[in-house]
Amino acid sequence: MQDQEIAREAESLSEEQKRLYRIRHSLAHVLAQAVLEYRPGAKLGFGPPVEHGFYYDFDLPEPIGEEDLPKIQKRMKKILRTREEFVRQEMGAEEAIRRTEEMGQPFKIEAAGDLRDKGVDVISFYTSGPFVDMCEGPHVANTGEIPADAFRLDSVAGAYWRGDEKNKMLTRIYGLAFFTKEELEGFIERRRLAMERDHRKLGRELDIFHIDESVGKGLPLWLPNGTVLRDEIEKLAMEYEFRYGYERVSSPHIAKEELYVLSGHLQHYKESMFPPMDYEDEEGKREVFYMKPMNCPHHHLIFRCRPRSYRDLPLRFAEYGTVYRFEKSGELAGLLRVRGMTMNDAHIYCTYDQAKEESIQVMKLYKELYDLFELEDYTVRFSTHDPANREKFHDNEPLWEASEKLLREALIEAGIVFEEGFGEAAFYGPKVDVQFKNLLGREETVSTVQLDYVAAEKFDLSYTDEHGADARPAVIHRAPLSVHERMLSFLIEHYGGAFPTWLAPIQVRLVTVNDDLLDYANRLKDRLRADFVRAEVDDLPHSFGKKIRNASTHKIPIVLVIGKREMEEGQVTVRRYRRKEQETVSFDAFREALLEEIRGRVHVKPDEDAPA
Amino acid sequence: MQDQEIAREAESLSEEQKRLYRIRHSLAHVLAQAVLEYRPGAKLGFGPPVEHGFYYDFDLPEPIGEEDLPKIQKRMKKILRTREEFVRQEMGAEEAIRRTEEMGQPFKIEAAGDLRDKGVDVISFYTSGPFVDMCEGPHVANTGEIPADAFRLDSVAGAYWRGDEKNKMLTRIYGLAFFTKEELEGFIERRRLAMERDHRKLGRELDIFHIDESVGKGLPLWLPNGTVLRDEIEKLAMEYEFRYGYERVSSPHIAKEELYVLSGHLQHYKESMFPPMDYEDEEGKREVFYMKPMNCPHHHLIFRCRPRSYRDLPLRFAEYGTVYRFEKSGELAGLLRVRGMTMNDAHIYCTYDQAKEESIQVMKLYKELYDLFELEDYTVRFSTHDPANREKFHDNEPLWEASEKLLREALIEAGIVFEEGFGEAAFYGPKVDVQFKNLLGREETVSTVQLDYVAAEKFDLSYTDEHGADARPAVIHRAPLSVHERMLSFLIEHYGGAFPTWLAPIQVRLVTVNDDLLDYANRLKDRLRADFVRAEVDDLPHSFGKKIRNASTHKIPIVLVIGKREMEEGQVTVRRYRRKEQETVSFDAFREALLEEIRGRVHVKPDEDAPA
Repeated sequence: MQDQEIAREAESLSEEQKRLYRIRHSLAHVLAQAVLEYRPGAKLGFGPPVEHGFYYDFDLPEPIGEEDLPKIQKRMKKILRTREEFVRQEMGAEEAIRRTEEMGQPFKIEAAGDLRDKGVDVISFYTSGPFVDMCEGPHVANTGEIPADAFRLDSVAGAYWRGDEKNKMLTRIYGLAFFTKEELEGFIERRRLAMERDHRKLGRELDIFHIDESVGKGLPLWLPNGTVLRDEIEKLAMEYEFRYGYERVSSPHIAKEELYVLSGHLQHYKESMFPPMDYEDEEGKREVFYMKPMNCPHHHLIFRCRPRSYRDLPLRFAEYGTVYRFEKSGELAGLLRVRGMTMNDAHIYCTYDQAKEESIQVMKLYKELYDLFELEDYTVRFSTHDPANREKFHDNEPLWEASEKLLREALIEAGIVFEEGFGEAAFYGPKVDVQFKNLLGREETVSTVQLDYVAAEKFDLSYTDEHGADARPAVIHRAPLSVHERMLSFLIEHYGGAFPTWLAPIQVRLVTVNDDLLDYANRLKDRLRADFVRAEVDDLPHSFGKKIRNASTHKIPIVLVIGKREMEEGQVTVRRYRRKEQETVSFDAFREALLEEIRGRVHVKPDEDAPA
Repeated sequence: MQDQEIAREAESLSEEQKRLYRIRHSLAHVLAQAVLEYRPGAKLGFGPPVEHGFYYDFDLPEPIGEEDLPKIQKRMKKILRTREEFVRQEMGAEEAIRRTEEMGQPFKIEAAGDLRDKGVDVISFYTSGPFVDMCEGPHVANTGEIPADAFRLDSVAGAYWRGDEKNKMLTRIYGLAFFTKEELEGFIERRRLAMERDHRKLGRELDIFHIDESVGKGLPLWLPNGTVLRDEIEKLAMEYEFRYGYERVSSPHIAKEELYVLSGHLQHYKESMFPPMDYEDEEGKREVFYMKPMNCPHHHLIFRCRPRSYRDLPLRFAEYGTVYRFEKSGELAGLLRVRGMTMNDAHIYCTYDQAKEESIQVMKLYKELYDLFELEDYTVRFSTHDPANREKFHDNEPLWEASEKLLREALIEAGIVFEEGFGEAAFYGPKVDVQFKNLLGREETVSTVQLDYVAAEKFDLSYTDEHGADARPAVIHRAPLSVHERMLSFLIEHYGGAFPTWLAPIQVRLVTVNDDLLDYANRLKDRLRADFVRAEVDDLPHSFGKKIRNASTHKIPIVLVIGKREMEEGQVTVRRYRRKEQETVSFDAFREALLEEIRGRVHVKPDEDAPA
C-alpha cells in the first residue's frame, strides 16, 4: 500500500514498534497473496497495519465469510514458510500507472493516478514471491521474519473503497498480529473480558443507566442502581474532602451571557457550549442565558461575594456540579462521551506561598482515592509551557518557571510517578493529567490538576494580606474522581459490574430454602435496612437453585441463605459472589461485620479461579 | 374614599372582619382630619383600609416625617374622644363634582370626574365632625367605636397618585389598627421578629446564599453554610425515603423538544419555561433542547425503559431534582420566588388498588418530616374537581369519584386535619396542598400530593398484571420538603437562623481561655471532625469575651469552652446557644452525647427568656 501519512507516522515509533509495524504491514501483503490464491481475480484495495494487527480490502468475484478465514490463514502460514524476500522497486508516476494497468488492479490504477495528480515523483512497489503491491513500505526482509504463531485472521467486514459511501463496498479482512503467541492470546483474552465488561453492556444488564432519544444522546437517565453508584461515590468524595478541609458549595446550571464574556468562554469555547437561551420581552428587554460548561466561573463568584482575608485562606470550594457541553452528536458514546456530566469539582483559593502545600495535598487525595478503588493502571502526565509559544501560553516567564517548579516538586513530594509533556500546559498555567488505561490499553484522560494564576486577575479575585494590602490568590482546579459518567464507565469495567459491598446497588440478597421462611427473611432484611444496608429478599416464585444463580447473574456481593436450621439457631449462611467457601454465623455477628466492611469500604475480592 | 372594588371585597368578609374593616377605614378618615389640622391646606388623595391597618395619601404644603407621627397620633386620639358620628350622604355625579370643587380638593375632583365618566349614578360622601370625604363606606357609627389604644401611626412613605409614576408623588402615612392593644403589640412584636428573621437578612448575615447579577436573579449561589443546610436536608430525605421504600434516580436538567410536546408542557406551560436552546448544523439538521420545568417526564421515561410487572409495583422513584422555571424577573424575591429550584420530588407508580395505601404512607411521611421540624402552623387543603367544568378537569366522572374518595380516606386514615377546596383539583386528578404560614400569617403553598390517572395514558406507561395483561399504573406526585429554596426560606425564619445541631452549618465552636490552649483545642476539634462533626476552633486574635459573643452572633449551637483546668482534667465546658446553664463534662462523654444528638436529630431549644 502507498500511504505517506502512515509511513510518516511509522517514523515516530520506537525501534520495537517499528519492527511490529513492519511485521503487520508485511502480513497484510501475505494476506493479499493468500486471498489471490483463494479467490483468483480478486481486486486489491488498500491493506495497512493497524492497532493490534492489519487488514486488507478486496473486491471479490465470490464472497468470503468468517468460515473461510481458517483456510486463508493456513495458506498464509505456508507463505511464511517460503521465506520470500520483500524487494523494493522505485519508478516514476507514469511508469507506476502502466505497471498497475499490467497488474489488472483497477483500485491500484486509480491510486497511482491520484499520486501522479498530487505531483508524487517516485512511487515504490514491493514484490514478495509471486505477489506485487504498489506500496511505500517499509517491510520485513523476508516472510520468514514474521512469527507464524503470533498472528490470527480475526473478522470480515464491509468497507467502502476509500471510506466513501458513494464508492463500491469492499470486503475487509482483519488480522491480529504480535511478536509472540502469548501476546496474541493475552490480547484475545483481554478483549473477551473487555467485551464482557463493556460498560454499555453491563449498564443495560445491571440496570445502571438508559439513554432515551426524547431526552437526547449523551444525556443518560440514571436508573436506581446507577444512582446508588453516583450517590456512594459522591458520599465518598464528601467524606474525603471533609477530611481534607474542603467546604461544599452549590451553584445553578445556568448563568447570564455576561458571566461567559467575563470568563472568556464565549470568545474561546463557544462551540463546546449549548446554544443560548435568548428571551426578549414585549418592551425589547433581553435576557440571554447559557448552560454552564464548567463550574469555575460560579465558584469564582462565590469567592468574590465576600471580603476575604489571608486568615480565611486556603478556601477549598467543592461541588459535584453538573456541566453541559455540546459534544458533536456523532461522537457521543455510552458514558464515555456525553453532553451532561457531573463533576467531582473543586477550586482551591490560596496564597502563592500556600500553593505548593495545597498541590501536595491534592496529589495525596488523588492517590488515596485511586488506592481505594485499587486503580493501578494509570499514568500521570505533567504538562509544562513552551517559552517560545507566546500565543498558547500567558506571557509571564518568571511566573511559569515558579509555578512549574512548584508543581513538579509537589508531585515528587507526594510520591507520584509522572512523565513530562513539554508545551502541553493550559493557557493559564501548568497542569497534571491523570490517564486511565482500559482493558485494551487505550488511555483516556480522566482528571486534571491545574494551577491557575490568571483567573484571579480576570475575575478580580483578591484578599487582604498580612499588611492590609490587596493580593491575588492562586487558584487550583482539581477533580480526582473526574465526572460521574466517565469514572463510572471505568469503574463498571474495572470491577466487571461486581462492585465492592459498599458500592453495590444491592448489597445483600436473602434467599430462603423454602417460602415458609420468607417472613423470617423479611424480618432480617428489615433489621439490615434499619442500618441503611441495601438488602432485599428474593420472593419470586423460583426454585432455590434459580434464586442462587440469579443473585450471581446480578453480581450481588453477598447472598444470605436461610434454611430452617439457620432460623432456629439465629444464624445465616453467607455466600459471597464468586467465592468458593461459605460460612454459617450468627445473624448479629454477620451484621456487625457487614457494617464494618461497608464503613471501611473493604473490597472482598472473588477467588481468582472462581467460575463465572 | 370611593373604591367599589374594596367595598365589594369587604362584603365577602366575616362579621368580625367587617367590623375591623370599618374601624380601619374610619381611622383613615380620622388621620386625614388630623393631618388637615396639622398641615392646613393639605390635599387629599385616597385613604383605604389595608392588611394590618390603613393609610392615607396627601399632597402637603410642608413635608411630614416620621418625627411628626406622634403629634398627629395625639390629635387623632383627641378626635376619637369627640365621638363624632359618620354621616352618609348620597348625590348624583354632577353634584358630587361640584361638592369636591367646593372642598377645594383637586384629586377628589379628578376622582369624581372619573366616576361620572364610568357612568356611576350615585356617589356617597361621609361627614364626621368637620371632616368630609367622598367615600363608598362603610364606616363605624361614630369615632367613639374605635379602640383608641389599638392603633398606631407606623411609617411615612412616598407614593405616586394612583400608583402611576407619571403622576405627582404624594406622602403616604401608614397606620396599624386592631381591636385591642394586645393584638396591636402582638403584631408589632411578630413583625419585629419577622424582620429580624427575614431569610434574606439572615441569608446574608449567616453566609447562606448570594445572588449575583451575572448569574441572574432567582438563581442563588449557595455558600458553604447554605450548602450544609441543603446537604443535611437531602440526607434527611434520603434516609426517610429509604425507610419508606423509595429508590433514587438521577436525570439531566434538559431534554429534547419532543419530550415536552409529549408531556404537553410546550402546549400548556411554555411561558413558565426558559427559552429553547436551538441548534442547527451546517446541513440544516436541528436539535432543540429545553431546561426541565418539572421532573415528571424524565421519571416517566425511567419507568418506561424496562418492562414492568405487577410484582415490581409500587415503584417509588425519588430525585432531589433541580428544575428551571422562567418566573417574571420582577417577581423574583430572595429564596421564595426563584428561577432554579431543587425539588424533593418523587413519583410513585402503583396499581389502582395500591393507590390508597401509598397515599396514606405519603401523608405519614409528610407528617413525620413536619413533626421533626416542629412545624405546626400549616394547613392541608384537599382539592377536588367540579363535575360541571369539563374544560378544567379530565372527563371521567367515575374515576374522579373513586380517586377523590380514595384520597379523602387516605387523609383521614393518616390522621391529617384538612379543609376541602371544591373545583381546585389539577386537570389530571385530585390533590392535597400543604400551606405554611409565615410569622406574619401569610400563607404559601409549599408542597402538594397529586393523584394522576392521566400520565400513564399520555406516556404509554404500563405493567403486566397478574393475568398477563397490560395495565396502566396510577401515578402519585409528591414533594414533602418542597424545593430547597422555599423550604429553607421557611426554615431559616422558623429557627431564626439558630438551627438544631444536626442542621447547623457549624455545629461546635471551640473557644480557649488563652492561646496556649489552642493546640489542645485543635486536637479535640480533629477528634470531632473524624466523626464528621462540623467543628472549628476560634483562633482569631480576639479576647475570650469577644469570641463568646461572636459564637452567639453566628448562632452556633454549641460552644466548647476550654481553660487550663478543662485541659488538665480532659473536660470541656459546654455552652449552648441562648441557654443559661452550662455544664462541664469529660470530652468523651460530650462527644458521645453529641453524636447521639446529631444522629437522632434532637433539637435542644433555647431558654424562653434567654437574652439575645
